[in-house]
Amino acid sequence: MSYTIWITGLPCAGKTTLGKRLKYELIKKGHSVVHLDGDDIRKGLNSDLGFSSEDRKENLRRISHIAELLNKNGNLVIASFVSPTNELRNMISGIIQNIKLVYARCSLDECEKRDVKGMYKKARNKEIEDFTGIDAPFEEPDTSILIDTEKKDVDYCINELILNLDKELI
Amino acid sequence: MSYTIWITGLPCAGKTTLGKRLKYELIKKGHSVVHLDGDDIRKGLNSDLGFSSEDRKENLRRISHIAELLNKNGNLVIASFVSPTNELRNMISGIIQNIKLVYARCSLDECEKRDVKGMYKKARNKEIEDFTGIDAPFEEPDTSILIDTEKKDVDYCINELILNLDKELI
Repeated sequence: MSYTIWITGLPCAGKTTLGKRLKYELIKKGHSVVHLDGDDIRKGLNSDLGFSSEDRKENLRRISHIAELLNKNGNLVIASFVSPTNELRNMISGIIQNIKLVYARCSLDECEKRDVKGMYKKARNKEIEDFTGIDAPFEEPDTSILIDTEKKDVDYCINELILNLDKELI
Repeated sequence: MSYTIWITGLPCAGKTTLGKRLKYELIKKGHSVVHLDGDDIRKGLNSDLGFSSEDRKENLRRISHIAELLNKNGNLVIASFVSPTNELRNMISGIIQNIKLVYARCSLDECEKRDVKGMYKKARNKEIEDFTGIDAPFEEPDTSILIDTEKKDVDYCINELILNLDKELI
């Protein structure tokens, strides 16, 4: 059965890193896997969208339909997106029939320390607006597979994540 | 090498039929194939778009980015879309790095006779507007693999199409 593993979390929580490594592990096991990732999608498909609340919703609506389409075509999908609110997560789950929500949990302090692309700094300096965690909300998800990307290293996180996936994948 | 086989042609020329059969043949040969088709995409991803010239362009822009993303992920893509003008086809080829354009050639008379979903009739009765072939333009593509879906049956067309694909696929 094909499904989507949707990784939500703050910017710099490690969603892309988890997604890339998980893809690698699942391909090794013979699965056909597509990794949908924020930066790639916003450069191409969704280059017409910004970060307003409306545009974020449209961004995730489109991505969800792509994931569902890929699932129907027999691909496993890994999606790494902030997807910051339960309302948005509910919309996503309404579009994708088979979905597992994974929460890459990392505190705001630690994410801000990592600040891989200097975006937190820009948000603090008000050079950019609507940045999740700073001046746009992030709600912890209600129910999901929780992966502690703050205190555990990548290998540990990936092992834990794989243990939470369906047995036929492993 | 992954690429996109993009099938252009009038409504009812047989683009979806060719796409479905080609997908079946390529999967039998062990390829990972995704078929992107007008109706599926417009029900989900692009349900916000209509048939104005601007919306058609945005529809095909999004689909092209999805195809490119899938190619990069190692999937062969078959895309069945009217894509009626050379300007639109140029945009598509500008987004998808490896693309083969296939022209499902069938006369307007024959397409109108088939009228699978009664859309030509609606267009003639002016119940719908901007219908390709009736009150929206269709330009014959300049260079492409030409498949005569008017005079040849599906088996013949598929064989001819496969002969035109790269040898490593066959």
